[in-house]
Amino acid sequence: MIVAEITLRSFTENIFLAMGCSIEHARLAADVLLKSDLRGIDSHGVARLTGYVRLWEKKRINTKPNITIVHETPTTATVDGDAGLGLVVAPYAMQVAIDKAERYGSGWVAVRNSNHFGIAGYHALMAVESDMIGFAMTNASPLVSPTYSSERLLGTNPMCYAFPAGKYPSLIVDMATSAAANGKLEIAQRLGKQVPEGWIQDKNGRATTDPHALKSGGSLLPLGGDTEHGSHKGFGLGATVDILSAVLSGANYGPWVPPFVAFLEPPTDPVGAGIGHFVGAMRVDGFRPVDEFKAHLDNWIERFKASATVEPNQKVIIPGEPETAAEKERKITGIPLVAAVVNDLNVLAEKFGVAKL
Amino acid sequence: MIVAEITLRSFTENIFLAMGCSIEHARLAADVLLKSDLRGIDSHGVARLTGYVRLWEKKRINTKPNITIVHETPTTATVDGDAGLGLVVAPYAMQVAIDKAERYGSGWVAVRNSNHFGIAGYHALMAVESDMIGFAMTNASPLVSPTYSSERLLGTNPMCYAFPAGKYPSLIVDMATSAAANGKLEIAQRLGKQVPEGWIQDKNGRATTDPHALKSGGSLLPLGGDTEHGSHKGFGLGATVDILSAVLSGANYGPWVPPFVAFLEPPTDPVGAGIGHFVGAMRVDGFRPVDEFKAHLDNWIERFKASATVEPNQKVIIPGEPETAAEKERKITGIPLVAAVVNDLNVLAEKFGVAKL
Repeated sequence: MIVAEITLRSFTENIFLAMGCSIEHARLAADVLLKSDLRGIDSHGVARLTGYVRLWEKKRINTKPNITIVHETPTTATVDGDAGLGLVVAPYAMQVAIDKAERYGSGWVAVRNSNHFGIAGYHALMAVESDMIGFAMTNASPLVSPTYSSERLLGTNPMCYAFPAGKYPSLIVDMATSAAANGKLEIAQRLGKQVPEGWIQDKNGRATTDPHALKSGGSLLPLGGDTEHGSHKGFGLGATVDILSAVLSGANYGPWVPPFVAFLEPPTDPVGAGIGHFVGAMRVDGFRPVDEFKAHLDNWIERFKASATVEPNQKVIIPGEPETAAEKERKITGIPLVAAVVNDLNVLAEKFGVAKL
Repeated sequence: MIVAEITLRSFTENIFLAMGCSIEHARLAADVLLKSDLRGIDSHGVARLTGYVRLWEKKRINTKPNITIVHETPTTATVDGDAGLGLVVAPYAMQVAIDKAERYGSGWVAVRNSNHFGIAGYHALMAVESDMIGFAMTNASPLVSPTYSSERLLGTNPMCYAFPAGKYPSLIVDMATSAAANGKLEIAQRLGKQVPEGWIQDKNGRATTDPHALKSGGSLLPLGGDTEHGSHKGFGLGATVDILSAVLSGANYGPWVPPFVAFLEPPTDPVGAGIGHFVGAMRVDGFRPVDEFKAHLDNWIERFKASATVEPNQKVIIPGEPETAAEKERKITGIPLVAAVVNDLNVLAEKFGVAKL
């Protein structure tokens, strides 16, 4: 089923309104989810709406949060999200960072007591609109084992860097610090296919290609996969995200991060509040004139796009390029939704008395 | 041969003095190299001294640089290294970042017209001493191919994050964004061993396990190794380092980065000046009280160290832990140098009329 952006947006806003969000928050939360669907990152868009609703039903999401700055210097701050949707807490924090950068050159905000914030790219891109470099990261439900470990101690902990270009779209590096995203496992499960070695391990920490291993106590592996291929680097990146997002902000970290799924209870011995994010912005003209930077980034992009490739018909892909292309297309052609997602959304519609898709 | 720290330090200082460095710069440059040798990162210490000398002989390193801030806001700056040793330019830039952070909460410095800066960890750790979080990255000679490419367009572009802990040593993530470091290939070459798939490709971009492939036009692969294992993430990280270090500062980027080896000439069509770095510092107490942060980071470290492991005798390694242990030991027992390095250093001693090791 293909749904026009405007239809899906209004549907999503209505669900958030029905959950008790203000009009402003409902619009913002829907905008974050729609951005993901438009950019082709189907796993992080409206497909997650039911998940947010379930957490709200469990009273783990507060749809009327009083988001506050609890600590700050001219260029740093810690924000308490009051258990709000990460979809509204993270943009609030990013705006604080942008305002600080406007005034002092850079701004950095650690966030605690939040929830899943959608795609990191949404928040980092907010800075790009003001000719700033944007940073966004978040910790997440523990699914990843550190190198040598058989326990799930880290989330897929994404990090995102966004840079404004001139004639080309913004260059956006937005990546989980695990070898593979959970969404890719789910696809393999549905198709009954094995996954490559280096994505997951079983509950004893042994390499496996069975995509169902995660459900029976296994774990995702850090980027790099195994020690021979640098999994300690993926672990180090995931650790960095966890520490900046949660140890710095006062959120839960490591195995204490509350799970995104409502059927799993959060740990009873929290070490902080909710999940944590870390966002930042730096003015490009704090370093060199914006037009110079953009001209050189355009040159960088052109040189990499023109690179000789292994297969003549496979060009080098600039980070963010496929997502920007998807966004351009889907704004016109609409957003394709698989039947299971449409069904889930219509169950929500019925629950809240909202018009079905 | 095992050399006492004090002996190797004084030897190294004398070489830098003989190259025309000021006493202050010679001490600092030697300190950066010694830190690497002490921490067990043998590839980046005095083993590189001959390389610096050769670049100086080619007039590509200026041992009397006038390092200046060419652009700044309260919390950002661009530094021109005047073709100086990165070993002295990067600490200068880091001090600028720390001073800005002292006053405004955070400080960020992009550096152009510099050279190889040793280990990223040295610079990031400068911030930790002031209870700040330290960041350091640099671009480097092009040896790495982006995903799908058969050309060398990026360096091993390391990134480093350093965090001050309480009762434990600082947690330091210091990693090349390639799957394997060049030093590991050299070891395999010496031993006549094959390397794992996913480290390198040949000049046509085909997977190979021959460690000599790099010398015959092949390239290193980004962290992740291949598309199935997330090499686009390693490419994205390498790109981020390149853009922050060079597109932002006005240094050379991508394939225009001047090679570290003196026998290869720099490109004749530079897009900037020298190589680039990017360093930063954020005050921990810009986010939460330092003692709270350290107590939680200690707890993080304890939980990860206590993790159940795949092999009972192999514990989870906290990032930076082996290097800190090596430093503690080598400060007492001395620094082991392989015969080839001792020989190279004594050739330098003879050249400069300095006492041999």
